[in-house]
Amino acid sequence: MISRISILGTGLLGTSVGLALRAAGFHGSITGWNRSSEGAQSALSMCAIDSIAADPLQAARESHIVILAMPIYATLDFMEKLSGLLGSEHLVTDVGSTKAQIAAAAGRLYNTPERAAFLPGHPMAGKERGGAALGDANLFRGAVWIFTDDPAWQRSPHSAELVKTWRELVAAMGSKILDLDPARHDELVAWVSHLPQFTATALSALLEEEVGGAPELKDVGGRALREMTRLGASPYSMWRDIALTNTSAIQAVLQALEQRLAHLRENLRSPALRDEFEQANKFRRE
Amino acid sequence: MISRISILGTGLLGTSVGLALRAAGFHGSITGWNRSSEGAQSALSMCAIDSIAADPLQAARESHIVILAMPIYATLDFMEKLSGLLGSEHLVTDVGSTKAQIAAAAGRLYNTPERAAFLPGHPMAGKERGGAALGDANLFRGAVWIFTDDPAWQRSPHSAELVKTWRELVAAMGSKILDLDPARHDELVAWVSHLPQFTATALSALLEEEVGGAPELKDVGGRALREMTRLGASPYSMWRDIALTNTSAIQAVLQALEQRLAHLRENLRSPALRDEFEQANKFRRE
Repeated sequence: MISRISILGTGLLGTSVGLALRAAGFHGSITGWNRSSEGAQSALSMCAIDSIAADPLQAARESHIVILAMPIYATLDFMEKLSGLLGSEHLVTDVGSTKAQIAAAAGRLYNTPERAAFLPGHPMAGKERGGAALGDANLFRGAVWIFTDDPAWQRSPHSAELVKTWRELVAAMGSKILDLDPARHDELVAWVSHLPQFTATALSALLEEEVGGAPELKDVGGRALREMTRLGASPYSMWRDIALTNTSAIQAVLQALEQRLAHLRENLRSPALRDEFEQANKFRRE
Repeated sequence: MISRISILGTGLLGTSVGLALRAAGFHGSITGWNRSSEGAQSALSMCAIDSIAADPLQAARESHIVILAMPIYATLDFMEKLSGLLGSEHLVTDVGSTKAQIAAAAGRLYNTPERAAFLPGHPMAGKERGGAALGDANLFRGAVWIFTDDPAWQRSPHSAELVKTWRELVAAMGSKILDLDPARHDELVAWVSHLPQFTATALSALLEEEVGGAPELKDVGGRALREMTRLGASPYSMWRDIALTNTSAIQAVLQALEQRLAHLRENLRSPALRDEFEQANKFRRE
């Protein structure tokens, strides 16, 4: 039934989806489009896509499944543009890192019996640098792929079937599917994804100021330092939209960490330090 | 000249030193002692040492080089006990993570022409868990090994030769030697070692409270979360003495990170967020 997929945005995630679909045995056509033509050329040369679309809207119209693999605000723009062009013979899905705004747009613009289906998705996989060239057929293997579907949405039987197919393809790419409410998703990723990233960014920026001028001193930190600052390489362009669409949850988790660090700082010479280490040990044991 | 080495404390570092000395071609005897006999048995069974000493002071007296591989306060205790027993035919060295107090004791108790030499050392290598069983002949390969020797110390020519030999053995174990002033050492490791550790501890302890009850949610964080919390497994017993002997430097770096996180939090929706990401990127580029 599904023979045509289009991937709009062939960066790291879009390219990896193309490669993973091929590795999972998908034999239909995969058309790609990217804002910069280099990214699309790169994905084509890696066989993540088998043709480059000149017009992303036209490519979407000719596909059964449309994957939006771009930053969040660009995803929201495309959701607006596509909703009037597509019907119940189409499924649109995305890979955006925050889901509340995207799920709200999906409820407003999609998911009636006459309209296209939209399944908000978020694969918990990535690298600290983006770009098609880093695309990896195994990126999603063992990773969690979250969907924030809404049981209240009314889809045609055909749309429901497309959603089921996409979920099966995601499982075939090696991901573990987890269904969450969009608000719960955004709160959870603030803790387990956004907090680690912003912590690594703050730590790396601070260390650049303190020891950045003396490269030999970085060696002193060894593996622990390299690991704790690896995410410092993440580009602003990947994180700006996340900060803008999950601001209050991120503020809350950052403040919680500030308070926790202050507690540690005030207890370096007290038995409470032991409690903190034991609590931390517990997180790693389970 | 050097045919007898003793390793007092056969935990992860002591055992690894024994294994690395053998791998580097040291053919003399290596005697080990450990507070718990299990640790010594384990080191013996791994061939990191070739005999277990019943009395650590006696073992030291019978060795050319004595390596104290134990927590900082235990090292300071042994420095006291050994200084009266040893003479200029001995070198004592250590692997402690802070150096100001140890270097001060070395100046007070060692390093005159009549007394034993003491060379304060700190290999920047370790694992998030300790114990002889994790001992690794390659632990120091490529790592920085810091010495905080003092040019003002007056040693006999024989003592000076022992110091030179130990530096050569450390290089033979694959380490890059870096000489630093003890106060500068303690300040530097507060930034590049202690700050990453306490950050991981605070982050892990906080996450244990927030999502610890739901193991499937940890999967959501993926590699980034695992990496940022790996050091959360570090035991209190390894860090207590570090917190007690480098308190003010650690307080300063923790406070600096708290302020940096607050700055990020207050600028999630402003262009200053870009500056923070770019500063962090720079740390990883160099």
